[in-house]
Parts: sequence; structure tokens; C-alpha cells
Amino acid sequence: MKITIAEVGRYVGQEVTIGTWLYNKRSSGKIQFLQLRDGTGFIQGVMVKKEVPPEVWEAAKELTQESSLYVTGVVREDERAPSGYELSVTDIDVIQIAENYPITPKEHGTEFLMDHRHLWIRSKRQHALLTIRHHIIQAIHDFFNKENFVKVDPPILTPTSAEGTTSLFHTKYFDEDAYLSQSGQLYMEAAAMAFGKVYSFGPTFRAEKSKTRRHLIEFWMVEPEMAFVDHEENLQIQERFVTHIVQTVLKNCRQELAVLERDTTLLEKVEAPFPRITYDQAIQLLQDKGHDIKWGEDFGAPDETAIAEEFDKPVFITRYPTEIKAFYMKPDPDRPEVVLCADLIAPEGYGEIIGGSQRIDDPVLLEQRFEQHQLSREAYQWYLDLRQYGTVPHSGFGLGLERTVAWITGTKHVRETIPFPRLLNRLYP
Amino acid sequence: MKITIAEVGRYVGQEVTIGTWLYNKRSSGKIQFLQLRDGTGFIQGVMVKKEVPPEVWEAAKELTQESSLYVTGVVREDERAPSGYELSVTDIDVIQIAENYPITPKEHGTEFLMDHRHLWIRSKRQHALLTIRHHIIQAIHDFFNKENFVKVDPPILTPTSAEGTTSLFHTKYFDEDAYLSQSGQLYMEAAAMAFGKVYSFGPTFRAEKSKTRRHLIEFWMVEPEMAFVDHEENLQIQERFVTHIVQTVLKNCRQELAVLERDTTLLEKVEAPFPRITYDQAIQLLQDKGHDIKWGEDFGAPDETAIAEEFDKPVFITRYPTEIKAFYMKPDPDRPEVVLCADLIAPEGYGEIIGGSQRIDDPVLLEQRFEQHQLSREAYQWYLDLRQYGTVPHSGFGLGLERTVAWITGTKHVRETIPFPRLLNRLYP
Ligand SMILES: [Mg+2]
Ligand SMILES: [Mg+2]
Repeated sequence: MKITIAEVGRYVGQEVTIGTWLYNKRSSGKIQFLQLRDGTGFIQGVMVKKEVPPEVWEAAKELTQESSLYVTGVVREDERAPSGYELSVTDIDVIQIAENYPITPKEHGTEFLMDHRHLWIRSKRQHALLTIRHHIIQAIHDFFNKENFVKVDPPILTPTSAEGTTSLFHTKYFDEDAYLSQSGQLYMEAAAMAFGKVYSFGPTFRAEKSKTRRHLIEFWMVEPEMAFVDHEENLQIQERFVTHIVQTVLKNCRQELAVLERDTTLLEKVEAPFPRITYDQAIQLLQDKGHDIKWGEDFGAPDETAIAEEFDKPVFITRYPTEIKAFYMKPDPDRPEVVLCADLIAPEGYGEIIGGSQRIDDPVLLEQRFEQHQLSREAYQWYLDLRQYGTVPHSGFGLGLERTVAWITGTKHVRETIPFPRLLNRLYP
Repeated sequence: MKITIAEVGRYVGQEVTIGTWLYNKRSSGKIQFLQLRDGTGFIQGVMVKKEVPPEVWEAAKELTQESSLYVTGVVREDERAPSGYELSVTDIDVIQIAENYPITPKEHGTEFLMDHRHLWIRSKRQHALLTIRHHIIQAIHDFFNKENFVKVDPPILTPTSAEGTTSLFHTKYFDEDAYLSQSGQLYMEAAAMAFGKVYSFGPTFRAEKSKTRRHLIEFWMVEPEMAFVDHEENLQIQERFVTHIVQTVLKNCRQELAVLERDTTLLEKVEAPFPRITYDQAIQLLQDKGHDIKWGEDFGAPDETAIAEEFDKPVFITRYPTEIKAFYMKPDPDRPEVVLCADLIAPEGYGEIIGGSQRIDDPVLLEQRFEQHQLSREAYQWYLDLRQYGTVPHSGFGLGLERTVAWITGTKHVRETIPFPRLLNRLYP
């Protein structure tokens, strides 16, 4: 019976064959302990010298780290094993002896590991991280599916950008110029007018020469957009959404969180509703804490961390100054110098994971914004059309996948939260 | 109670309010029939003159196509309605009267409609098409989730391409050159060695000056890759996969298929296993049919259609000549002039929807291929590493989302199967 390590629980007491790689091994002279992985999990194979033919024993002695082999054995329950099972090995069939695998159990520098990212992802910690990333991706799709959102894929190649082209990647599109999208939001607004509630989930590109632990050049973003949804409902959906993601990971990824030694105390508390403070209150709070910041300025990472410290859940900062936010955000009718927006700040210093707002639905105000921001009416005629032909109140937000993975897994630098990171000086592998 | 059209079935006999757009209307003088849409569905609102205040009756008379309004009414079951329900309107609250909506119920040319794609997606047919696209996307995620695949996102920005850069979009990546990925497959092979069974699902770019009805410049592709899976198992997974997609659409999208007037006779028959013919047999078949084709040549669209005509299910064409297929495909050990590959051809002239193969696992043969194809060892050292450190038999395939949507929805041209198509002369909206 050819199975995977993830399936061993269904085969206790039975002989099975698994295609594997040797992760590590140790030997007592009479017993060889083979740490095996097959991508679906890790298991220990126990080979007792007197219970296998001599050539099998000798073959096992030749195995090096990352050698590939089919292993045959009987599945045993074992409470001490992290997976709960081990394998009493009866036979092995070596596919390849790996020579000089570069990533040894000893310590390596980050640049070296990143140069070997194609192999590094086999390591236990990276495997756990990217498995949790996968579960977060699935939780995102599940949430929007259950809430009857339609997935709409906005284009990556776009003729221009409403927020300037300085941090965009440029390419020739036959005879035209095109740029890689930094956000599909404007397209998603068009889609919301056609499908009501929509979401996108795809790669996004930012050609910024920044080297912080929160920035990737290429990253994945979720962008929901909803017709007939106002600022308040928008926040409620975000609360449910983030709660769903965190609770799904806590339910499905206990082993992976343990591998990462993630303290889940604060994660367990992530349940809607989330605390909210206004931008005004946040400024006051920071000033009280001695930060050098004035009303009208945006928050830096240390500011966000200082605000997050005051709460043990993600916190919404609402109603930022109109001046420092995007042109499409709807001003508060009672106080037009601030907009009906919110950023969601993760606890524990992981920073902003969501930015969202109600959008301007008034065609006259949107035209004014186009003039103020010197946006091309020609390039965005289609966007202006949305306010001419049945404008409605609508809202949306964007969640950065890698920052969310970094927070939930407790990973300092986002570069480990994506399989093949693209950084300022890294385009390989 | 504020609800959506999709939810009306739960509110029969109750008064509800729905945010909507007017799709169309007609009047008998005493009754106005308002065709309403809200993105989640379509419903008819029936307003009887003597049952509403005069100002409500007059307001309804002002409504133009794509005007936005909140409509309040009592939900009634109605067997004649496509949705099964209609609304006895008691009140309306107009948000905006739309003036001169450009897409009228009369016929428009394709270029005009594509220029107004941001509005065209509101039309019934486009709404149905893209709703089915959404259900196909969800079916794809569901399938791989149930089969315990891990979603891995390969990078879009890559330093070079193993298959040449002539049809790639180029961009400057700070001081380096980068290209938009045409396939994440090689990265997915690295991922399969770390996670066993993986899939990617993301946008792909092909800078080809082709204008056929099967080509998009930017399209979405699913690329699964599986360790310890051979050619035969690869085909079985593809059969299960495509069956799952088609049967899910037949189950969940009856209304949308009806809007599209899709004849589902052949779709109903899509159940694994699928017929298989070898490339040799396909050449013989085409020659018998009078096609001008010789062994060693690739099939064109008319050839694929002629082959598909012989079957009422998707058909696998297996074992193509090594010469005309990608460098990484594993030769048939019994007959190295052909490779262990298969293309899956959809019925009814929709062409190739899947290409897949077992991959070369022998490091020596792969090195030979690199020399024959003059590939850069330096750029692909990481890929060669995969055969040095525990190489294993492995297979994978790629499915084109838009071609699959075109087939299942019975749409001739792929340009309508993606929300915002990118074509040779189209980068707007
Ligand atoms: Mg911010
Ligand atoms: Mg082909």
C-alpha cells in the first residue's frame, strides 16, 4: 500500500510504503532511527538490525541527508512522536544518495539560506510557515465563499496608475506602456457594481527601494469590495474575516504552530469585535507616550507598534486626515477633514495588515479629487463612469497576505512568509 | 430588513429592502414592471399604481436603465420567474438617475462593448459567464484542498526563462533585468520536493502578437506538481480534476447555463475515465481525415478540433515526439523519441485545456537537455539542484482557466471569459 505520511493514522498495524527523503538520522549500533519527510509530514522510521536483511541494514547506513527512498514498514502508534506515529521499517528502496546537501543541521546565514531557498523550504520551520500560509489562503477563500462574494480577477497589466508611477514596474505592451498593478481596487469597484460583493486575491508589485522587514517587492493581496456597504459594515466584515482566519489556523495548524514555538495566547483572544480608536485619539496617545508626531502626519512602524501595545487584539485606527489618504476615500459628512477609513493594526508589533474605507460615491466630489490630484480623466474615464451610471454607497479593504502570515506565525521578517521572496537585491532563485 | 436578491427565498411573504440597479422596465399604465439587479441576482419588482402613493409611482416612472435605488417590497413566490420569486413593490428610494447609459438593450459591436467592459460586466450574459468563472475557481481550490495539495505561489518576476524570452514581458528590476513569468512550473517542482503535492493558481503573461480566439495576453493558470507521481497517475488525477470542475458547475450554475443557452448534453457526460489516444494514432487519424500533417509536427487548432470530434468527452493525446515538447519532459523508457506527456483536448472545438507530463528525474539526462537547449546553468542552478539532492519521479500539469471557462460556458472567444481582458490592442479599461 503506497501512502503518504499524512495518512499513516489510517494504517496502524499495517505494512505501508512511503516515498520519502531522509531528514536526519541517528544510530545506536543495533537500531537506526531514520527521520523521514515526504512533504505531507515527518515521521521516524525505526530499523532494528536483527529484524532486517543485512543488505537493507547496510543500505540504510549509506543514507545521507535529503537522500530519496521508498521506505516500507509497519505503522505503530507512539505517543512520544510529534505526529503520534512511527514506522517499524522492514525494507528500504534507495532512489538516490544525495551528496553534500548544502543546508546542514548547523546554523547558516540568511543570505546563504535565501540563495538556497528552493531547498530551504524543505526544512521543518519553513515547511511549517508555508503550510500555515496555505491554510490562511484557504481560510480566505472559504470566508468569502460562505459570505457569497464573487472572485473577480483584476488585470495586472494596466495602462497607468492613479497613485503615480514612480514605484511601479514598467514594461512595453507592444507599442504602448504598461505598469504592473499595485492594487486592483478601482477595477474591483467596477466589479462590485456588477456582482454586489466581490474579492480579488493575487500578486501585487511595488518597486520600492525599501529594505524593511515588512516589505516585499512582490506580495499577495486580498481586495474585497462591496456595493451598498458603508464604513461601519465594512469594519464588521473585516472583524469577522480576521477572526475567521486566526481561528481556522488555531484549529488546523496546532503542529505547525508548535514547530514554530508560537505563543498563541494573544491569538486565542482574536474574536470580533475589535477595539477602535480614532486617528485623533491615536495622535493623543502617541504624544502622551512621548512620540514626536503632530496631527496630519502618518504613522511610522514604531508609532503603530506603540498603539498596538495598548490592546491585546487587533485595533482599528479610524478617520485619518483626508490629506494623507487616497483620493477615493469618502470624507466624513460631519467633518470632511477626515475620511471614513480604517487601518487594522495587528498586535505584537506586526503592524498594519488591513487598510480600507468607504469610497466616494458623489460624482461631483470625485471629479474635484481628480483635479486636485491631477489624475488623467482620459485614463480613468471608465472609473468616473461608475459614478455616472447608478452610483451607490460602497466600501472595501485590502489585506496583505504576507504580513498576516508573519503576524499569525510570529515571524519577524516577511521574507520567510512567501515561498520565493522578491527583495531589493534578490531575484533568485 | 436589508437583504440581497440571492436571499429572497428566505423572506417569502415578508417586506424587505434591497439595494439595486434598474436593468429594464415596462409599464401597462396601471402596473410598472421593474427588472432589478443587485449583483447577486435579478428579480422583477411589480408596482401597482393604486397600491402605492402617487409620488412613489411618479418616482418609478423617472427610473432609467442603471439608475440606482433602494426598493422595498413583499417577496412573492412566482413559478414563471427565472429566479422563482418576484417583489410586490411598496416603496422606492432613488439614489441616482443614470443618464444615457451607453449599453442599451440593442446590439453593440464587440469593440464598443470592450471599451465599456467596466459596464458590460453588468449585462446578464456577462454576469452569467463570470459567475461561472467564479464557481470554476472555487471548484479548483476545493479539489486540491480535498486531495491535500498545498497552495504554493511561484514568483511572477523571474530573472530569465528556460523557454526563451522572445514572448516575455521585460521590466527593469532595479539594476537587473526581469521577466514576467509564463509558467511557475520549475518553481513548483522545487515546491513538490518540499510539500509532496502542490498547486499554484495565478496570472500568467504571454507577449505574443497573436489574435486568435484562444489567446489572451494575461490569463490565469493552475499548475499542480506532484512528487512520487508517474505519468499514469498524473492522467488519473487530471480526469478526476476536470470531472470535478464540470460536475460542480452543472450542480451550482443551472441558472447561469440557462442564461447562456448552453447545451449541456456533452458536459453531462464528462466523467472519468477519459479516452486516450497516442500522438501516433492522432497523426494517423488526421491523415485518414485528409489533414496535411506528418509525424513530428505539432497540432494546430483545426487538427485538435478534428481529433476532438471523434470523442464525446475530453480526450488525452499522449506521448508526443520528444523534439516538439519542452526540455523537462521525461522520455518514454521504451521509446525515447516520445515523452511521457499528454495534452487534454476539450470537446466541441474548444481545444487544449491541459498540458502535462512526467518530468525528467535523471540528473545526467537533465544536464544533457540543458546543453542541447543551450540553457543557462547559472540561471537554473537551483533547478539542477533538485536532481542532485534526492531526485524522485514526479509529474505535473497546467490548466488554462479561461479556455476551461470558454468550453464549459460554450463561449467562442476567450476574451469574454475574464473580467478585464488584455489583448493585442487592448489595455483599457
Ligand atoms: Mg498606514
Ligand atoms: Mg498543444
